[in-house]
Amino acid sequence: MSDPKSVITLLHGAGGAYMHNLIKEYFLKLDDNFGEVGLGVLDDAAVINGIVFTTDSYTVRPIFFRGGDIGRLAVSGTVNDIAMMGGDPIALSLAVVIEEGFSKSDLAKIVESIKRTCEEANVHIVTGDTKVMERNSLDKIVINTGGIGIASEELKHNFNVLRKSREVKYEWLVPMNIRDGDKIIVSGTIGDHAIAILSSREGVEFESNIQSDVMPLNKMMKKVLEVGGIADAKDPTRGGLADLLNDWAEKSGLGIYIKESEIPVKEEVSSAIEFLGLDLLELGNEGKAVLAVSPEMARDVLETLHSTPWGKDASIIGEVRKDIEGVILETVVGGKRLVTRPTGDPVPRIC
Amino acid sequence: MSDPKSVITLLHGAGGAYMHNLIKEYFLKLDDNFGEVGLGVLDDAAVINGIVFTTDSYTVRPIFFRGGDIGRLAVSGTVNDIAMMGGDPIALSLAVVIEEGFSKSDLAKIVESIKRTCEEANVHIVTGDTKVMERNSLDKIVINTGGIGIASEELKHNFNVLRKSREVKYEWLVPMNIRDGDKIIVSGTIGDHAIAILSSREGVEFESNIQSDVMPLNKMMKKVLEVGGIADAKDPTRGGLADLLNDWAEKSGLGIYIKESEIPVKEEVSSAIEFLGLDLLELGNEGKAVLAVSPEMARDVLETLHSTPWGKDASIIGEVRKDIEGVILETVVGGKRLVTRPTGDPVPRIC
Ligand SMILES: Nc1ncnc2c1ncn2[C@@H]1O[C@H](COP(=O)(O)OP(=O)(O)OP(=O)(O)O)[C@@H](O)[C@H]1O
Ligand SMILES: Nc1ncnc2c1ncn2[C@@H]1O[C@H](COP(=O)(O)OP(=O)(O)OP(=O)(O)O)[C@@H](O)[C@H]1O
Ligand SMILES: [Mg+2]
Ligand SMILES: [Mg+2]
Ligand SMILES: [Mg+2]
Ligand SMILES: [Mg+2]
Ligand SMILES: [Mg+2]
Ligand SMILES: [Mg+2]
Repeated sequence: MSDPKSVITLLHGAGGAYMHNLIKEYFLKLDDNFGEVGLGVLDDAAVINGIVFTTDSYTVRPIFFRGGDIGRLAVSGTVNDIAMMGGDPIALSLAVVIEEGFSKSDLAKIVESIKRTCEEANVHIVTGDTKVMERNSLDKIVINTGGIGIASEELKHNFNVLRKSREVKYEWLVPMNIRDGDKIIVSGTIGDHAIAILSSREGVEFESNIQSDVMPLNKMMKKVLEVGGIADAKDPTRGGLADLLNDWAEKSGLGIYIKESEIPVKEEVSSAIEFLGLDLLELGNEGKAVLAVSPEMARDVLETLHSTPWGKDASIIGEVRKDIEGVILETVVGGKRLVTRPTGDPVPRIC
Repeated sequence: MSDPKSVITLLHGAGGAYMHNLIKEYFLKLDDNFGEVGLGVLDDAAVINGIVFTTDSYTVRPIFFRGGDIGRLAVSGTVNDIAMMGGDPIALSLAVVIEEGFSKSDLAKIVESIKRTCEEANVHIVTGDTKVMERNSLDKIVINTGGIGIASEELKHNFNVLRKSREVKYEWLVPMNIRDGDKIIVSGTIGDHAIAILSSREGVEFESNIQSDVMPLNKMMKKVLEVGGIADAKDPTRGGLADLLNDWAEKSGLGIYIKESEIPVKEEVSSAIEFLGLDLLELGNEGKAVLAVSPEMARDVLETLHSTPWGKDASIIGEVRKDIEGVILETVVGGKRLVTRPTGDPVPRIC
C-alpha cells in the first residue's frame, strides 16, 4: 500500500479520521468564514443568504445494487444533507461523468430512477452537466448532485420549542445547538446500506437479501420539526454512527453515551457483520437520520417517527453527557468501550 | 469505435450535436418546468427563487497545462456560467474525486490555485465533498464545482437600458431576449485554451507558447452591465463559437451573420490550427464571453470592454439577422458558408 503521508489512499475517502484530517489540512484553508454556516463548520451543508447549499459526488460500486442504484443514491444523499440542516430542498443540479462505452440503456435506467426519486422527495433537477472520459479512464460513471434549500415554517417552529430549554444562536440544525441531557435518536435500522452494497459485489462470499435503505428523508424531517425540540440532525453515511457521534462530541464539546442494546439492527445484518468481522457502528447508511433532541421533546419526536413510513424502527439509543469525554458505548454484555472515529473503511465506495 | 446508438462515445461529451441530442433525449425528461429559468431552457445556469444555480464537472487532461490547471478552470468555469446569466456569483461548492495514489503535493497546488482564483473572482467555497476511487478506476482527479449567484444592481440597470429597444420578458441574460439587428461581440481572442491544452499534451507533434485564457469573467460582466443593453451572454466553451452561435440562432429563431476577418485570433493559434487542420470556430475557450448587444449600445459596450484587462481584444464579429437562417460565416476571401454545430471534437477533454 502507498504511503498516506505523500499520496492519497483509499483511507482518505473513507469518511473517518484520515478523510477529516485531509479536509482540515488541504481544503479548510479555502475557508474565509463566509456565510451563516460556512465551510469552517464542516457540517452537512452550508448556509449563505438564507440558502442551504450542498454537494456530493457518488462513486458507488456496483452502480445497481440491492434496493437502489447510483441515481436514487445521488438524489437522496443530497436531499438528505439539506434536510439534516433543517432546510427544505427545492432544486438539485445533476452532473454526470461517463466512461466511453457505457451502455445507453443503463443510463436510461439511472435517469428514470433519478426522476422517480425526485418525485418522491418533491425536488427538481434544474441544471446539469455531461462529460465523457475515455475508456479505462473512469470506472463506468460518477454522478455529482448539488442542492439548494430554504428554511421552512416547521424549522422556525422547531426552534421556538427548542428555545424553552436553551439559548439558540443558530436557527439551523448544527452541533452547536446540542446540550447536556439531549437524547440521541436514530430513525431506523443501522448497517443495511453497507451490507447491501457488499452483498451486491461480485466475488463476495456471503449471501444476503438485505436491501439498501437509500431514500430521501426530507418529508420525515418536516414531520419531526413540526413536533419541535430538535437541536441537530445528521445522516450516518460514510464513517457510520461512530464518525457521526464523534463529530458531535467534538463540535459540541460534550460526551455522548449510547447503549448497544438500543441500536436497531436487522437480524440478517447482525449475522453478516458477525460473519465478516465488521463493526456495526462504522457501517454507512443512506436512509437514516440521527437526531439530538431536547429531553422534554424526545418521546413526542420518537412517537411521531414511529407513525411515519421512514421512521417506524426509530429508537432512543443514548444521550449527551457533559460528565464524560468522547463517545462511550455500553455493550450488550454491560461493558463499556470508547468509540473512536473509524480509520479503515469496512466497505469502500459505498456512496 | 463503438456504436453511438447503443453506448456512450467521446462524441457525447464533445459539446456539439451528439451531446445536445443526448441531453435532450435522456436528461430533458427530468424537466418539470420548475423555476424562472428552468432546465428546459438548457442555458448556462438555472434561476429559481431569484437564485442563479449551476454545476460543471472538470475532467481536463493534463491537469496542469500552459496558463492554468484544473483548479483554476473549475472555479472560472462555474463563475462564468453564473456571470453569463447576469448573476453575481456568491458561493461555490467543491467536490473532488481522486484516484488512489494521487500526489498530495499536486493536490496542494490545485487547492492553492482554487484559492487564488476565488480571491480573483471574489467568490467563496462554502461546502465540498471528497471521494477516492481505486487505482486505475479514475484518471487522476475529477473536480465538480457548483455555484449560486444573485441579481445585481447592474443587471437591473442593463435591462432598463435594453427596454428602450425591445420588450423584455426575462430579466436574465437568455437567448429569448435577442432581437434582429443585435450586434455580436466576442470579448477577446479565440482558440487559446484548446490550443494550450493540446500543446500541453505528451506526444503532440507541435510546439507552441500559447497560454490558456482560463479566467473568471464576473468582474468584466459587471462592467458591461453597468453600460447596459446586453440581451444575452454566453461563454464559448466545448463546441466553441460554432456551437454557441447555433444555440442562439435556434433559441432566438433568428439568423446570425459573422465575419471571419473580425474574429480576434492570435497569430500562433492561427498557425497551429492551420498546421493541425482544425476549425477555429469549434475550439473551446475558458476566459471569453460572447455578447448579443442592442445596436445602439454596441459601441459603448465595446469601448468599455477595451478599457478592461479582460476585454482588451474585444471585437464586433457580426450581427443577428431575421432575413437569414442559421449561422452564416463570411470568410476572409469573401465567400459564405453555413456554420453548423460541431459533431466531432477537435480537442477532447479540454474541460
Ligand atoms: N473537497 C472539499 N472542499 C471543501 N470542503 C469539503 C471538501 N470535502 C469535504 N468537505 C466538507 O467537509 C465536511 C464533511 O464532508 P462529508 O462529505 O463527510 O459530509 P457528507 O456529505 O455529510 O458525507 P457523505 O459525503 O458521506 O455523504 C462537509 O462540511 C463538507 O462540506
Ligand atoms: N446531465 C444533465 N442533466 C441535466 N441537464 C444537463 C445535463 N447535462 C447538461 N445539462 C444542461 O444542458 C445545457 C448545456 O450544458 P453544457 O454543459 O453544454 O453547458 P455549459 O456548462 O455552459 O458548457 P461547459 O460544460 O462546456 O462549460 C445546460 O443548460 C445544462 O444545464
Ligand atoms: Mg452527504
Ligand atoms: Mg456544463
Ligand atoms: Mg445537522
Ligand atoms: Mg460551463
Ligand atoms: Mg459529502
Ligand atoms: Mg446567457
